[in-house]
This record gives sequence, C-alpha cells and structure tokens, in this order.
Amino acid sequence: MPEHELVEIIRRADDAINREDFDAGADFYADDATLVLAPGRVVTGKARIRAAMAAIAAHFGHNLHVSQRDYLVIEGGDTALVLARATIATKAEPVWSEERRATYVFRRVDGRWLCVVDNSYGTGLLPAG
Amino acid sequence: MPEHELVEIIRRADDAINREDFDAGADFYADDATLVLAPGRVVTGKARIRAAMAAIAAHFGHNLHVSQRDYLVIEGGDTALVLARATIATKAEPVWSEERRATYVFRRVDGRWLCVVDNSYGTGLLPAG
Repeated sequence: MPEHELVEIIRRADDAINREDFDAGADFYADDATLVLAPGRVVTGKARIRAAMAAIAAHFGHNLHVSQRDYLVIEGGDTALVLARATIATKAEPVWSEERRATYVFRRVDGRWLCVVDNSYGTGLLPAG
Repeated sequence: MPEHELVEIIRRADDAINREDFDAGADFYADDATLVLAPGRVVTGKARIRAAMAAIAAHFGHNLHVSQRDYLVIEGGDTALVLARATIATKAEPVWSEERRATYVFRRVDGRWLCVVDNSYGTGLLPAG
C-alpha cells in the first residue's frame, strides 16, 4: 500500500517541532484547531497552539524529540482519523521517553490537509477499567 | 459540565442499531463516511454502511446490543473527535460481550453533526508493543 500523504505531513510537523520552528509547526493546524496538552487540558486556536509549543519546548529544556511510527489513516468525508504510535523523548542524557497511542484528526481544506484535533493521548484520556 | 450534544446523538444512533432500524442508523453518517468493521476491514459510503449494519445484526442472530459510556468530546474546526468506552454484547444467553475504547469523528455540516469516521476499535488497530 502506498504511504498516505498525511504520513509525510505529520513527519514534517514533527520535524518542525524538533527544530523548534514554531511558525512552521503551527502552520499544520487549522485556525480553530484543538491541541490536547495533557489529560483535561486543551488549547484551541492556532496562535495559542504556537504559544503552547514554545512553552512545551522550554519545559523540556529545548531538548524535546517527537517521532511516530505505525501510522494508520482512516479517511471519510474529506476528514481523516490518523492513529500512530508516538514517542515523546528528550535528546540529552538522562533520556526521558514516553510512548503514546495517538489520535489526530485532519480536514482537507481547499485541497490541503490541516490538523483540527491533535490528541497524542488517544483513548488514554478515558478512565481505566 | 453540560453534556455535549454529540452524546445524545450517539445514544440515538446506538438505539437505532439496537432496534435494527438501519435507515435511522445510517442517517447519522455522512454520505462518504467510513466504518471500521474489523481490524483491516472498512466500508465507505452510507449505503454500504447500512448494508454492513444489517449484516452485523444477522451475524449476531438479531441479538446485538451496543452501548457506550464515559464520553469525551474534543472539538476543533467544526469537527469533533469523540472517545468513549463501548460495550458490544448479545442480549440473550449465553451473553457474549466485548469492551472497546472507541474513536469517532463527526463533522458539523449545515448545522448538523454527521459521523465521518466510525472506528470503535480506537487505537486497538495499532500493533501492540
């Protein structure tokens, strides 16, 4: 199966985050997109998402590295649900790293895919049991 | 927090499935929606989704009961990612039941929410490990 174009888009978005190019990073989002920062904490709006990206980078000592694999894209109605295994890690020692089963929603707007919901926590936000 | 309107919409969709009213059930979907039938098996299009619903009902001996709880709705850009704990069960003895951590994507089209991606398997579709 050929790789879905969203895989390369997400790779470029992660690369922007890792290079701390927050203008490029924010540009992957729709104007009224929502980013889940942590369970129970979301931000909506491109400018707020850009600010949150900068705050997260600072929080991790400008040492953050995000990557994903095992992408699965399910398209319906000019919208796509993307599932992926995400690794959020620090580059320098001591290495801290967290694995997540992420869920992203993209919409195709004027021929271009834009992220509308960025929830790297996936169904991990649901109560256990 | 007041209940999101999508919670009631999903309850009504489940009720339609449980009553085997497949016309009503299919009406919750956008024309080009995608339903994940099983890992690796999807159908796209309202008519195919209606046919799949009828086939699933027959497969379960007209004895299927679906329900959900712990809804979490994340909205962005006239789109919503809904997470929920879903129970798929049979009504008659012997009771068979399966728990899933589901992911649904809805789009607001002309003021009405329509399901565009129905993936009750959530991130369970990703490889383990």
